[in-house]
Amino acid sequence: MFMQHGGNILEIAEQYGLATQDIIDFSANINPLGIPESIKQAIIQNIDQLKHYPDIRYRELTEAISQYHNCLASQVFVGNGAAEIIYSLPQVLETQKMLVLAPTFSEYESAFSQTGTEFSYYSLEDNQFNLSIEQFIEQAKLAQVDSICLCNPNNPTGQVLAKEDSLRLLDFCQQANILLVMDEAFMDFIIDEECSLADYLDQYSQLYIVRSLTKIFAIPGLRLGYLLTSNELVIDQLNKTCPPWHINTLASLAGQVALQDKEYLEESLSYVKEQRRYLIKELSTISTIEMYPSDTNFLFFKWLGNVDLRLELISNGYLIRTCETFKGLKETYYRIAVRTHEENKGLVKAIQEIVHEKSDC
Amino acid sequence: MFMQHGGNILEIAEQYGLATQDIIDFSANINPLGIPESIKQAIIQNIDQLKHYPDIRYRELTEAISQYHNCLASQVFVGNGAAEIIYSLPQVLETQKMLVLAPTFSEYESAFSQTGTEFSYYSLEDNQFNLSIEQFIEQAKLAQVDSICLCNPNNPTGQVLAKEDSLRLLDFCQQANILLVMDEAFMDFIIDEECSLADYLDQYSQLYIVRSLTKIFAIPGLRLGYLLTSNELVIDQLNKTCPPWHINTLASLAGQVALQDKEYLEESLSYVKEQRRYLIKELSTISTIEMYPSDTNFLFFKWLGNVDLRLELISNGYLIRTCETFKGLKETYYRIAVRTHEENKGLVKAIQEIVHEKSDC
Repeated sequence: MFMQHGGNILEIAEQYGLATQDIIDFSANINPLGIPESIKQAIIQNIDQLKHYPDIRYRELTEAISQYHNCLASQVFVGNGAAEIIYSLPQVLETQKMLVLAPTFSEYESAFSQTGTEFSYYSLEDNQFNLSIEQFIEQAKLAQVDSICLCNPNNPTGQVLAKEDSLRLLDFCQQANILLVMDEAFMDFIIDEECSLADYLDQYSQLYIVRSLTKIFAIPGLRLGYLLTSNELVIDQLNKTCPPWHINTLASLAGQVALQDKEYLEESLSYVKEQRRYLIKELSTISTIEMYPSDTNFLFFKWLGNVDLRLELISNGYLIRTCETFKGLKETYYRIAVRTHEENKGLVKAIQEIVHEKSDC
Repeated sequence: MFMQHGGNILEIAEQYGLATQDIIDFSANINPLGIPESIKQAIIQNIDQLKHYPDIRYRELTEAISQYHNCLASQVFVGNGAAEIIYSLPQVLETQKMLVLAPTFSEYESAFSQTGTEFSYYSLEDNQFNLSIEQFIEQAKLAQVDSICLCNPNNPTGQVLAKEDSLRLLDFCQQANILLVMDEAFMDFIIDEECSLADYLDQYSQLYIVRSLTKIFAIPGLRLGYLLTSNELVIDQLNKTCPPWHINTLASLAGQVALQDKEYLEESLSYVKEQRRYLIKELSTISTIEMYPSDTNFLFFKWLGNVDLRLELISNGYLIRTCETFKGLKETYYRIAVRTHEENKGLVKAIQEIVHEKSDC
């Protein structure tokens, strides 16, 4: 699990002799507005609660999430980050062959291979980074998979599936008795249309939605995610198999207050949209960058220059995510988070200077 | 996993129409001095760190623990509470039959039964709550177990194994190729002699020590535990199988500062010892209480009265731990934490009044 993710600034800082505060981290896809004040206040005011065990059932947190999604509390299972959900699912779902995207978040494979699941890959690079739902379903049929895990919007490519495509896939899975795990970790950043499948739990017993609260509320250090499914037997099994008190009290409180913080959510969406546009506009003018469309809070591009862009940028204090550890990418691709305007401006300038200075770019 | 542990004050408060702050919780075995100031300051000063992912390797935390125990960092695996360690071990250790105490902490059975492990029980009640190491080893031989999980000091009975007995067991396990999991979650409260096996990692590859930092530092809401073993293959496997970022940043920081806080540790040990003596002395004078010796921060006793002691005490605002959910107890036993002097005095008074008022006691 080491070194295949963004956000490892401590390690990078050591490696390059920098102080962590001197690194602007474009490698982790975290809300650029930072931790909401409501969460900070909840933590400070409730420090003394840490002397008690968390509620072993996490009823208030579960209730807050169910209200947010307008679903039943019995359809929610909370986790120590979405990562814990992803690692818990193989313990309770029977899967032998799973269809995933390539490239996509690597932890599905790490988690489900622990129970011997084999994988079939839909190559995005071979399809111009465009997911054709018909081709995808064809591959599911051909490969005879019993399960699909789809990251939507996909990490690292940043595109979201249109609602009608998701529903088409959901119908196919339900009819073909295929488990559909939808990782919607970045769905909160999607503004223009509601692409989540969270409204379809009741009708689709094969649907398992993984969500994260750490990206949108900028609290990856606190850990908080959850699963939504109408398959309550699976939720019962997860409650039986997971360690007791697996979510810390402060994460549980943070989730409760943050989901009420509509102002922060609205502001975040509008800010990320504006800054995404800015970055796309500026980076598209650079001849050695081939941008791909993004619907979320990170951008994915192919680098055509000859220098090692990540290395060059680190010496300027910018950390970006190389995508070479993602399965299914043959060329030099990078992923960058959408950050604050000042930071985005700085990154653009640094890249422009690298391109300008290095004659072989 | 529900309702079989102490510390569930939220649920109890709701059930009895009380406010949580009106309940004095003797059911969870937490350091009565409360959260050290050093931890509170570390949390407040580092709230903004939550916007970063934790170090995926937890190197600083691991290093702090290895220094505390004077062992190698490669012999430490950190966990989201000792509970996560207990639930991770069955994924990487091959066990078919395990010897455990009855009564003991119930999570060993919950965790190891997930991989089909069967259990043999050494009944403490049948042995006057005294663990004879010779009898225990005899039973391990007779039952042909391949593993032993021993809680030391044992929860709920509170007695610690003398060092020579632990070493006798360790030698037996090493020779007989039996895995020995020692849960030393409450070992930090043992003053009079150092009974931990942490100094014996190097010589004994069969030894797995589970430790918790949440009891001694009063941070059960923050979650932090660890495993010590010289079997580095097992540590590698744990790193591969556990979800990434499984420990939150604040728990990791808390562990680092708290292990340096020698003053708090010394004060805690001396305070708990004094208050344990006080409680034993006072409760021993009550005719309907049969006390057992305790070496740690909780006491175990048999209640000979006819009233439901737990229920009577709840109406006085005191929550104690009934032991009926512990396997292997036939009578009415209770466990109480050692708390502050004022709280202990209040509990003693409340029990005395119950005994005095109820003619059938």
